[in-house]
This record gives sequence, C-alpha cells and structure tokens, in this order.
Amino acid sequence: MSGVLYGVGLGPGDPELMTLKSARVLREAKVVAYFSRRGSASRARSIAGGFLHAGQEEIPLAYPVTTEFPAGDARYAPLMEAFYQEAAGALATRLSAGQDIAVLCEGDPFFYGSFMHLHIRLADRFECRVVPGVTGMSGCWTAAGTPMVWGSEVLCVLPGTLPTAVLAERLKGTDAAALMKLGRNLPRVREALAQAGLLERAIYVEYGSTPQERVVRMVEKTDDVAPYFSIILVPGKGNA
Amino acid sequence: MSGVLYGVGLGPGDPELMTLKSARVLREAKVVAYFSRRGSASRARSIAGGFLHAGQEEIPLAYPVTTEFPAGDARYAPLMEAFYQEAAGALATRLSAGQDIAVLCEGDPFFYGSFMHLHIRLADRFECRVVPGVTGMSGCWTAAGTPMVWGSEVLCVLPGTLPTAVLAERLKGTDAAALMKLGRNLPRVREALAQAGLLERAIYVEYGSTPQERVVRMVEKTDDVAPYFSIILVPGKGNA
Repeated sequence: MSGVLYGVGLGPGDPELMTLKSARVLREAKVVAYFSRRGSASRARSIAGGFLHAGQEEIPLAYPVTTEFPAGDARYAPLMEAFYQEAAGALATRLSAGQDIAVLCEGDPFFYGSFMHLHIRLADRFECRVVPGVTGMSGCWTAAGTPMVWGSEVLCVLPGTLPTAVLAERLKGTDAAALMKLGRNLPRVREALAQAGLLERAIYVEYGSTPQERVVRMVEKTDDVAPYFSIILVPGKGNA
Repeated sequence: MSGVLYGVGLGPGDPELMTLKSARVLREAKVVAYFSRRGSASRARSIAGGFLHAGQEEIPLAYPVTTEFPAGDARYAPLMEAFYQEAAGALATRLSAGQDIAVLCEGDPFFYGSFMHLHIRLADRFECRVVPGVTGMSGCWTAAGTPMVWGSEVLCVLPGTLPTAVLAERLKGTDAAALMKLGRNLPRVREALAQAGLLERAIYVEYGSTPQERVVRMVEKTDDVAPYFSIILVPGKGNA
C-alpha cells in the first residue's frame, strides 16, 4: 500500500486564512514537506507552524537558486529541473514505503505553485489529494478593500516577467488585471501600465493579509522596490 | 457606535473549505444575511449551516429575478438596482443601530460576488471587513486534478456572456483560461473554444468540491446543459 501525496493550500499568509480542511490534514500528517530559499526559513513552514506538532517528521526542500542569476540565465532551468527531480525521488521513496506526505503550499497549490512540479512527477504513480487555498492575489485585493471583478468583466493574471509590449497589449484588452512576479520587473510593469493608460487605477499591495501588509496607489509609489510577495491590481470598474 | 459589515467568504461549496477566520466570524455573528433565488434555499446558507446557531438572527435577501428574463432584457438591470438599494438600506438601518452583520458569500467576496453590490453602497458610511475565500474556479481545477498555471503563463477569467468572437480572440491570446457563467452560453463557449483550437484541452467541471462534483473533457460533453456552478478550464501547458 503506497502512501498519499497531499498538496495543502495555506492561503495568502495569515494562518487564520487557512481552510478547515488544510488545518485538519496538517494536524493528522505524520510527514510534512516544504520548499524554502537556501539558508532562509520557509515561509510556508511559518504560516503552518501553529498547526504542526513535535511528533511530525519534517522534510525541508531548499531551492538551489531563486534570484541569484540574472533573468533568463541559462544555468537556472537545468538546476531547478535537477532539484525537482531529486525532491520528487526522495518523496517517492517514502510514498512507496507507505508514508503519507503533506506538502505545504503557499496560496493555492495548482495556481503557480511549486507543488505542481512534484505533482507532475508523482501523480501517475501515487494517489495525490489537493486541498485548495485562498490565493495570494485574493489576500491582496482583500487588503486593498476593493471589489476586483464585476458581472461580465474579464480578469487577466499577468506575470511581470512578460515583455513590456506584451504586458501593455494584454492590459489594453482586459477589464481587470492582477500583475504578479514584480521584483526586478516593477519598472517595466509600471511602463506597461502607463502605455495602457491604467497607472491611475493601479494599486500596489505587498504581504497582503499579514502584519507587514502595505497598500499604496501606483501613482504614489515612486521607488522600484517590490518583494516577491507583492502584486499590482487593476480592479474592474463595474460597468461591464 | 455603528456596527461592522462583514463579507464572509465561504469557498467553493465543501464547508470544510471555509477558512478558519470565516468559521470564527460566523460563530461570533449575531446577525447573518445571505442572498438566494426567490423561492429557493440559499446555497450560501447551506454551506454555512453547520457554523450557525439558534441564537442568531437571519436576514434572507431574495433576488427578484435570476434567469427568468432572456439575456440582455431591459427589465433586469432596474429590478436588480432597486433590489440592491433596498437590501443595502435594510442593512444600513441595523448597522446604524450598532448591529454587526455577517453577509455570507459563496467563493471569494470580491471576486464576482453579490456582496460587492452591498459593499459599494455601504463602505463609505460603515466599517467593512472582508474575509477572503477559496474561489469556485479553484474548487473546480482542484476537482479536475490538474495544475492550472505555471511560471510565466497568463490566466484569463472569461465570462461566457461575452460575444463568441470576443471569447475566441481572448482565448487565442492566453496560456490558460477559466470560462465562467456558462448556463445558456455553453454552445457559444464551445464554438469559441473550437475557433481558438482549444476544445481538445478544455475540461468541463460542475459543482467542484461538493458531492455533486462532475469532471468531463469537453470533447466528451455532447449536451448543452450547464448549471450556474459550472466552469470550463483550459489549463496551461507548462512550457511558458
């Protein structure tokens, strides 16, 4: 009897925004795995901390690199591929031995989640059960206190890694937008918003739902600093 | 001292997919309001039922119409406007008298939620606190067991009420899509998917996360029946 691989959505950051089901699966889990930056505490581990207990075994999975290389550096993809392959192999050994494993997932596991890299390598051989979570973007538009999409409006979720011209084009064709993966892409995202005539409506949010939460209109954000857990929202106008 | 208006996200349908915070706010609430179809049980009320208790006052808010009129019928908008105005007025009277009110919201309150129509009419006069929830679409892609968006992929959320040509155009310009508001629009949505060459990748899901949950590939769905709580997903391919 093989074990079950759980992908457990933890929500946007506030531990109380975890679902009842995620909290239950974490309490019952004997083995818990989570990703982290090398040398840093795992953010997923810190969200889930209050639901874990001493009797559980923990498997940290430390990314070999995150933002050490310039964007598009050819060394990044093979390093990450080898890392996910190795991590999946380590989990497969335990699953084959009948251990259930709960993988901690910030936000929602199937929405830009690192868990998907384990799922795609293991779901054909082992039973996988996913518990959805509140997304980081939802935590951010809740922090901004603004309805995001109305009626027949279109929402586009756009990674800031896209070329500026593509971003501007996509922004012109949507009613509402959530711009993710800002970091060093923030200046280009700002330029794309300006080209699409949306700078006035755009709202910058970082660490939505946590004590570090900060909300500021883009026209008032003059610096180019954006942590990984930041997002720019263009809420729908509600007339669609 | 005025009362506080809470918008309480309930998630996609399974009561255990409610957040810990929503469960707490519901347990503590003295007054609970919820929308429903006229003459039908409220779906929000039934998701939240296990967290409510006899000491709470309940305020049902029954829509005057839902799908009784043909799409685009001129009578719909003024009826709904008057309904939301009256509902907001009734809540305002209680908020002014110092009562807190918890409004039950399926999915996430700020993501296509009816709650937004109360929020926009009351947030300038009363304190509003929103508890985000797992979206219905997240419940559906979890049901489908498929990662939805990877890395730098674009996700578009598209209401099926859009014209077929617009839908096809938007579908061609995105990596992944969630098509909402199917109902009587299903035949046109199918046609738009075909025009965009995406029928083969599309997955139909209804009542994700509930006992009525059903997942079927669009190429195998031959009928045109789609309840309100259905969605079509085009998952990203993961090569972006």
